[in-house]
Amino acid sequence: MRATLIYGAGDVRVEQVPDAAVQQPTDAVVRVLRSCVCGSDLWPYGSMAPAPQGNRIGHEFLGIVEEVGAQVSGLTRGDVVVAPFVWADNTCDFCTEGLQTSCRHGGMWGRNGVDGGQGEAVRVPQAQGTLVRLPVTEDSALLPSLLTLSDVLPTGHHCAVTAGVGPRTTVTVIGDGAVGLSAVLAARRLGAERIILMGRHKDRTDLGREFGATDVVAERGAEGVERVRELTGGDGTHTVLECVGLLPAIETAFAVVRSGGVVSRVGAPQYADVPMGFGVFFRNITLTGGVAPARAYIDELLPDVLEGRIEPGRVFDRVVDLSDIADGYRAMADREALKVLVTP
Amino acid sequence: MRATLIYGAGDVRVEQVPDAAVQQPTDAVVRVLRSCVCGSDLWPYGSMAPAPQGNRIGHEFLGIVEEVGAQVSGLTRGDVVVAPFVWADNTCDFCTEGLQTSCRHGGMWGRNGVDGGQGEAVRVPQAQGTLVRLPVTEDSALLPSLLTLSDVLPTGHHCAVTAGVGPRTTVTVIGDGAVGLSAVLAARRLGAERIILMGRHKDRTDLGREFGATDVVAERGAEGVERVRELTGGDGTHTVLECVGLLPAIETAFAVVRSGGVVSRVGAPQYADVPMGFGVFFRNITLTGGVAPARAYIDELLPDVLEGRIEPGRVFDRVVDLSDIADGYRAMADREALKVLVTP
Repeated sequence: MRATLIYGAGDVRVEQVPDAAVQQPTDAVVRVLRSCVCGSDLWPYGSMAPAPQGNRIGHEFLGIVEEVGAQVSGLTRGDVVVAPFVWADNTCDFCTEGLQTSCRHGGMWGRNGVDGGQGEAVRVPQAQGTLVRLPVTEDSALLPSLLTLSDVLPTGHHCAVTAGVGPRTTVTVIGDGAVGLSAVLAARRLGAERIILMGRHKDRTDLGREFGATDVVAERGAEGVERVRELTGGDGTHTVLECVGLLPAIETAFAVVRSGGVVSRVGAPQYADVPMGFGVFFRNITLTGGVAPARAYIDELLPDVLEGRIEPGRVFDRVVDLSDIADGYRAMADREALKVLVTP
Repeated sequence: MRATLIYGAGDVRVEQVPDAAVQQPTDAVVRVLRSCVCGSDLWPYGSMAPAPQGNRIGHEFLGIVEEVGAQVSGLTRGDVVVAPFVWADNTCDFCTEGLQTSCRHGGMWGRNGVDGGQGEAVRVPQAQGTLVRLPVTEDSALLPSLLTLSDVLPTGHHCAVTAGVGPRTTVTVIGDGAVGLSAVLAARRLGAERIILMGRHKDRTDLGREFGATDVVAERGAEGVERVRELTGGDGTHTVLECVGLLPAIETAFAVVRSGGVVSRVGAPQYADVPMGFGVFFRNITLTGGVAPARAYIDELLPDVLEGRIEPGRVFDRVVDLSDIADGYRAMADREALKVLVTP
C-alpha cells in the first residue's frame, strides 16, 4: 500500500510500505477514506533533522473497517469509523478517567511499527477501545466534519473544558489556525457569550466569527494585549485558550487573562519553560490543558456533528489526493491553506 | 509606638514609629496581641539590598480594636480580631468571587504608608472588609491557632482547595515548613486519606504525621521522586502541594504528580520560569495556586479552630517579645525554629 513518510524538513513523500494487516488479536485494519494534515505535523515539516529511513506520519483519519482481530468485538467489516489521534484500550484506569492519552496500553500513530494515518490503510492497535463507529456511509457529505473528531475539534473542546468555559465565562482564543477556530466553536457550544479571537488572517477570523467569536483582535504583542484589555474594562478574560504553542502566545495569554483566571493550552509547546513567576502567582492564574484525550469527547460531540448543529469541517479549505500530500504540507506551511483534507 | 523595620539582609530592628491612627473613615486601629514571622519574611531577610530608610515588615497579626473610623460598622473598640495577610474591602467583584488578594481597593501591609503587622499597633485600611471578629478574650489559649488564620492555615488550605483535594485524592506535600504542615492539615481536613509529606527535618515531619501525613519521604531530588513513585505504584499522586517556592521544589512537584493531576503552589516563587514543556503538556498536568485569599477562607476555618478540631497553632515552636524579634528572624533563618510567635 502507499503511505506518507517524512524524511526531514520540507521533505514529505508517498511511498510503498507493507500492507496494513492484523498482527495482534486486538488489532483491526481500516481502509482510509479521509485523512488530513495537522498543524502539529508542520513542526517536523519545518525543522526535522534528516532521517534516512523516513518516518511514517499522520494521526487523523476516518475509514472503513476491512478486517478485525479475534478479540475485537463491536466492530464489523464495512463499518465507517473514526480514530482519535492517540490509540488506547479505553478500559484502563486512565482511560476510564477520560485521559486516554495516558492509556497504559496505548500509543501514537506512526511510531513503533504502528502505521501513520496519512496512508491508504492503517493497522489499528487496541481497535475496540480506539475506534468509534459512525452511523454514515462512505459517501456522506459529513465526512469532513466527522474527521475533525479525530483531533482538531476535541482539541479545541479540551481547551475550553479544562479552562472551565461556561455561560458566565469570558474567553480569549489565541490563534486563528484550525485548533483556534475549533476552540471558538467549542467555547460557543459550551455557552460562552463573549469570545475574543486573536488572529491576523482575515479569512480565518471571518470563519471564527461564524463559529461564534464576538470580537476579533488582529493586533499582536503588547498592542494585542492592550486591545483585549480595552475590550474587557481593563481586566482581561476569565479564560484564555492558547492554541498556538509558541512562547509569545503563552506570554500573551498571561497578559490577557483576568486575575484568578485560567489559561489552557493545547498548542504543542515549542518552548521548555513557561514565564510564571511572582506576578502570575500573585494573580492566582492557573495553567492547564495538554494533549487532548479526543476519545473521551467523541461520544459527546458526535451528535452535534451528525445533526448539523456544528460544522467543524469548515476548517478544511483545500483537498488533495494522497499522491499530492506534499503539496498539501507546502500549502499549509505557506499559509495558503488553513487545513488540508486528504482523499485516497 | 514601636514597630519592626528591615534595613537589609539580616538586619531587622525594632524602632519608634508614628503611632497608628485612623486616617480614613474606613480605617480602624488594632493593638497587636500576637504577630509572627512568616517564611516569606525570610526572603528579604536572606537577600534584601540595604534600604537606608528601612521598610516596615510583618503581615500576620491578631489584636484588639482600639478605634474605628466613622464609616466602619460591625466593629467596636475592644473586639478581638484577626487580619488576613492582604487587606481588602471585601465588597468588590474580586472579593465577592473570593479573590480578596486582587481586591480593587486593597493592598499589602507595610507598604505605601500602611503599617506592618510586626509592631505594637496597626492602622487597618478597609477595616470592615478586612478584619474578622473572634469570639474570644485576649487571654485565650487559642490565640496562636487563631493567629494562623491570618496566613499560614488559609495558605495551606488554598493550596489543597485549588489542587482539588478531596476524599478520593492522593496528595504529596512538598516542604515541611509551617505552610507545608498547614497544607497537610488542610488536606486531611478535606478528607484525603493518603498524604505523603516530603521533608527532611524529623521534628517537623513528626508534627506532620500528627497533622495527618500518612507517609514521610525524607529524601530529596531524584531519590525523593523515586520514593514517592514507589509509594504510589509508579504513578505519583493526583495532587502535589508545593509549599516551598524554589525551583527544585517545583521540579520535584512535576516529577511526582500523576498524569492528569494538579500541582498547586503557594510558596512565593523565587524563580521566573516554570519547566512546563512538552513532557508536562503531554501528561495533562495543571499548575494552579497562588497567593492565598485568606479572607475568603477564615469563616470556614474558624469553627474548626474554635472547637479544637484542628490545632494549627502547633506550628509555633518559639515565642519572642517584639523587642527580641531580630532573634526570632535569626532562629527561623537558621532553622532552629519552625515558626516564631511574637508577643508585645
